[in-house]
Amino acid sequence: MSELKPADPNWEENCRAFFERQEINRTFGITMPVLRPGYCELEMPFDRRFTQQDGVLQAGVPAVLGDNAGGYAGLSLFPAGSNILAVEFKINLLAPGRGQRFQACARVVKTGRTLTVNDIEVFAIEGETRKLIAKMQQTAIRVDIRPA
Amino acid sequence: MSELKPADPNWEENCRAFFERQEINRTFGITMPVLRPGYCELEMPFDRRFTQQDGVLQAGVPAVLGDNAGGYAGLSLFPAGSNILAVEFKINLLAPGRGQRFQACARVVKTGRTLTVNDIEVFAIEGETRKLIAKMQQTAIRVDIRPA
Amino acid sequence: MSELKPADPNWEENCRAFFERQEINRTFGITMPVLRPGYCELEMPFDRRFTQQDGVLQAGVPAVLGDNAGGYAGLSLFPAGSNILAVEFKINLLAPGRGQRFQACARVVKTGRTLTVNDIEVFAIEGETRKLIAKMQQTAIRVDIRPA
Amino acid sequence: MSELKPADPNWEENCRAFFERQEINRTFGITMPVLRPGYCELEMPFDRRFTQQDGVLQAGVPAVLGDNAGGYAGLSLFPAGSNILAVEFKINLLAPGRGQRFQACARVVKTGRTLTVNDIEVFAIEGETRKLIAKMQQTAIRVDIRPA
Repeated sequence: MSELKPADPNWEENCRAFFERQEINRTFGITMPVLRPGYCELEMPFDRRFTQQDGVLQAGVPAVLGDNAGGYAGLSLFPAGSNILAVEFKINLLAPGRGQRFQACARVVKTGRTLTVNDIEVFAIEGETRKLIAKMQQTAIRVDIRPA
Repeated sequence: MSELKPADPNWEENCRAFFERQEINRTFGITMPVLRPGYCELEMPFDRRFTQQDGVLQAGVPAVLGDNAGGYAGLSLFPAGSNILAVEFKINLLAPGRGQRFQACARVVKTGRTLTVNDIEVFAIEGETRKLIAKMQQTAIRVDIRPA
Repeated sequence: MSELKPADPNWEENCRAFFERQEINRTFGITMPVLRPGYCELEMPFDRRFTQQDGVLQAGVPAVLGDNAGGYAGLSLFPAGSNILAVEFKINLLAPGRGQRFQACARVVKTGRTLTVNDIEVFAIEGETRKLIAKMQQTAIRVDIRPA
Repeated sequence: MSELKPADPNWEENCRAFFERQEINRTFGITMPVLRPGYCELEMPFDRRFTQQDGVLQAGVPAVLGDNAGGYAGLSLFPAGSNILAVEFKINLLAPGRGQRFQACARVVKTGRTLTVNDIEVFAIEGETRKLIAKMQQTAIRVDIRPA
């Protein structure tokens, strides 16, 4: 995809403001090391509170991280005054969610006036090792921000 | 689906033991009001810690709840000595995750020797009102429990 | 879902006109035995031309049938002047596509101003037997019909 | 993904034999210009017989092409004596299926003893232009070939 021009000059500030307003980011310890037009990386530490029967991340947790990464990637290309909501996503769990921390890399595959489609990969990081643990395909929709 | 005979006479005890071992259930305040062969209902309260920019549940949260509900529904039909892992799921978000509590209803659509496919609906409950907020289709795999 | 009131008084005529304009229906021998607001059933005969290595339907074929069924179900509730396009779908193949004919039953789960989400089941029919062979979840979008 | 060593020395011959046995390839005019371990490209011409109301490919058609491409990519890494079946797939339709011919590029994301997960892109080709029209994520399962 080539035409990754943000339509809103304040796209970065706007994405970061959204990030701050999402309480779930604080709860999961999510940070945003990388944000570019149409691309976003989020990270979170391993946290025993979010594990399943084998002591690894429950399958919904990479989806929490990946869904937010896709949201910022998509939002970065929308015009000013836009809110973004997930319409749907599909995730394949490829390996156990075991590691020191987890990274979601989201990339806009197609953006339009209404919808954005994002490709998202989630990795487990342990020391120098980075392993793909989930792959996700997400559709999100642009809606107008409603005046408060 | 008619042939919902559990293969393991201890299916219920086994599912409840899995539930107890999943730390995420405590973290999200998840309870299991209903468990039958091939069917499971889970509930969780609304919790501001899991919200996005509009103060409603982030899109991954119904997936956390629904994935676990599908897991117990699938596990209830597997033979003794089985572990269950999510292979993949797809979720459509149909309405904002706003309410007093949330309920996931998971039903096995097809169970086999290796895979189970589950249909999952997630509802928001507010007083007497119960509203469908997400619909999910999940594939999970049976694996042998490894000796500790 | 309760509010299945068609917005277009000519909904049925309109859906049938769409059906006629889809060349693929003729190619696959698809018929439309049932059409109600928010619900559609399509059928097609078994056809050796659409089979894979084991002589059963290739996995994309139930998707062809189910996608069209979802399209008419969704279109039936849209206002006059609407075209409908598939945004995405997910399908689980549950049993081999073997039988005399195949039936897709599509039902609108949620309809909005822009999107419709549909639940679709595909069955194989052999004499008196009707077997679920695929389950599908589809998102489609309303767009204005462009003047020719 | 690095470990793309075929387990079956006859992997290529085997994949091509599967291709020949799939009647749907002849019906859709599908060819296989590229086959490597864990990767496959298929092509098909535009064909009016497979179109929807706007004269472009019906949404299930890129799924037919992509599903087969994923099947050969996955099969290429399986041991001798393997059959492969689609468990499920999800496809996003990104642009109308309009062009002279269509190309599906499938790549194995993760292969295991039982399952393979594939990432598939479908392009429309018109002269020198190649446009992404669909993105697909597929899960397929290895089963033993049953003696005839």
